[in-house]
Amino acid sequence: MIQKVNLSEKFGRFREVYQPKIAGELNDTYLKLVKIKGEFVWHQHEQEDELFWVVQGRLQIKLRDGDIWLEPGEFVIIPRGVEHCPFAEEETHVVLLESKTTLNTGDVHNDRTVTNLDRV
Amino acid sequence: MIQKVNLSEKFGRFREVYQPKIAGELNDTYLKLVKIKGEFVWHQHEQEDELFWVVQGRLQIKLRDGDIWLEPGEFVIIPRGVEHCPFAEEETHVVLLESKTTLNTGDVHNDRTVTNLDRV
Repeated sequence: MIQKVNLSEKFGRFREVYQPKIAGELNDTYLKLVKIKGEFVWHQHEQEDELFWVVQGRLQIKLRDGDIWLEPGEFVIIPRGVEHCPFAEEETHVVLLESKTTLNTGDVHNDRTVTNLDRV
Repeated sequence: MIQKVNLSEKFGRFREVYQPKIAGELNDTYLKLVKIKGEFVWHQHEQEDELFWVVQGRLQIKLRDGDIWLEPGEFVIIPRGVEHCPFAEEETHVVLLESKTTLNTGDVHNDRTVTNLDRV
C-alpha cells in the first residue's frame, strides 16, 4: 500500500534535535527529517553529497569560505569533501537527502554520531 | 562556489508544463522541478523509484488500485514497477527526486517524452 507523507505531521511526532529520522527511501537515497537547534559539529562526507532543505525556521550552513543561510523553500547541496557545520538559533525543521550510507557526523565520531536511525 | 536554491524563484523561470528541469544533483540523484497541469500518461519505471513532492497546488497520482492526492508539504514515493499517472486540475508545482537515469515517461515513449533535460 503506497502512502503519502505529510511533512508537518511527521515533524510533530518527535522532539529531539540532531537525531535524523528516515521518512522515506528511494533507490540508494534516504529522505530524512531532522530538527536543528544550536551548533552541530564541523565534518565532511568523503564520498557523499548531501542536500539540506528547510521547511520551517532558518538554517545556517557554515562553510570554511563563507556561510549560507536557508529559509523555508530553499535548499543547498553540499558536495562530498566539503567541510560544513549546521547551526540554527531557533528550532528549525530540515529535510535531508542523503545516500543510505551517509553518517550524520561524516568523518567525525563523537557523542552526536547516530548510527541506527529511527523511522518516522 | 556553493549556492543555495530558492524554489519559488526557480519555478518563476519557466512556464511550460510536463517539462522537468534539473535544479540540483547529488550522488546518483537529480532533483527536478516540473509544472503539472492536466493529465500525463500512464507509465512505470522498471528499475527506479520516484518521489513527488508538491510545493504549490494539488496533485493527483492515479494508481491502478486507487488515487493519491498531494497538497503542499506532502510527498509520495512511487516504487519501481508501479504504474502511475499524474494529474492536476490547476497548475501545480512539483519537485521530483529521481535517479539520473529516469525518463519522464518511463516505459512509454511518445510526444511527452523528454530525453534532454534543461537545467534551471
